[in-house]
Amino acid sequence: MTSAAATDLIGVLAYGELVAFERNGVDASKAPTLRDKVELGKLAAAEHRHFEALCAFLAGNGVDPLAAMEPFTSAFDTFHDNMAPRDWLEGLMKTYVGDGIAADFYREVAGLLDGAEAAVVLSVLNDSQDSGYVVDRLREAIEADPTVAGRLALWGRRLMGEMISQGTIVAGSRPALRDALVQRGAEIDLGGMVNRLAVSHGRRMDALGLAS
Amino acid sequence: MTSAAATDLIGVLAYGELVAFERNGVDASKAPTLRDKVELGKLAAAEHRHFEALCAFLAGNGVDPLAAMEPFTSAFDTFHDNMAPRDWLEGLMKTYVGDGIAADFYREVAGLLDGAEAAVVLSVLNDSQDSGYVVDRLREAIEADPTVAGRLALWGRRLMGEMISQGTIVAGSRPALRDALVQRGAEIDLGGMVNRLAVSHGRRMDALGLAS
Repeated sequence: MTSAAATDLIGVLAYGELVAFERNGVDASKAPTLRDKVELGKLAAAEHRHFEALCAFLAGNGVDPLAAMEPFTSAFDTFHDNMAPRDWLEGLMKTYVGDGIAADFYREVAGLLDGAEAAVVLSVLNDSQDSGYVVDRLREAIEADPTVAGRLALWGRRLMGEMISQGTIVAGSRPALRDALVQRGAEIDLGGMVNRLAVSHGRRMDALGLAS
Repeated sequence: MTSAAATDLIGVLAYGELVAFERNGVDASKAPTLRDKVELGKLAAAEHRHFEALCAFLAGNGVDPLAAMEPFTSAFDTFHDNMAPRDWLEGLMKTYVGDGIAADFYREVAGLLDGAEAAVVLSVLNDSQDSGYVVDRLREAIEADPTVAGRLALWGRRLMGEMISQGTIVAGSRPALRDALVQRGAEIDLGGMVNRLAVSHGRRMDALGLAS
């Protein structure tokens, strides 16, 4: 993989963490209990730590982190604008779906990179927070009100669809990244990656008893 | 100072940091540029670090951090609900005013506490972020549009007034804290503290060329 493609991949991960951090901060501000605020705050703080680690890596390799992130801001911002949660529960579901897909995507990216680039991506992945709290809270809400399941299942499908849609636009808009990702015959195959992400997403929806 | 009053003081600081972290996360999500997002994110991450240090101190001393914070959630939440910024600039001004008053309040609180309690408060205070970015951004906005000065000056006065108002309600609602703070004749004097905070606040408004 060229260094331009590697910079793109680390830039996209860094901006994703920055925005995830912001969104969990927004959700924490709307959390129904102090315990919820504290738990979401922990997730947000971990995301910011990841953001800092990725930016430090870029800067240490002579790449301006802002310049590396800038090409991806519009796709993420569009995703978040299109998929604004209507309430606290949808926000939590978005965290669950988004964090799961992000972790899978980190694993895919680590497999595409070599050496120090792969190492920084894996170190961030290994610092991921346990999703136990989010899962427990979602299960509680589904058990307390069975009509919640249908709404969250639909919301989960829409989140996944919009992520794939924005991800495809991003991949297509960056020549170095597109060339790296569509290198057929090698282990790198965009369609295969999307399928793997979709299968994992389905498993996570199953874990909540939701249709994917 | 009794340990109940010390727990109250550390609890109020911890919840203040948690909410400041959330609000900077919300503001970062509305920031006009990527640089602004990154800078506000740094402030929010530092606030979360402070929150964690204070909670770890409480937990290490056998105090449940949630229980220590709970009595103060309503005052902070009321403050933030009453003083919701109408735009990005008002959010930035709120950060500037709030962080300045918080730093002064930390110094006051450190003076009221002894030993390990004073040490943890000072260590958090010493980790405070430089306000240079916020000041520069506010100055830029005031220079670019002189009508901004009047609006921000009024907003700064309202913020200070509402903080004093909520602070007084909090102090009065916690018997151990009230007894500690109104211990006249000693160095502890609530009225004196409010005056010192107001004088410092006035200096910070002057630094921006705003009437306080």
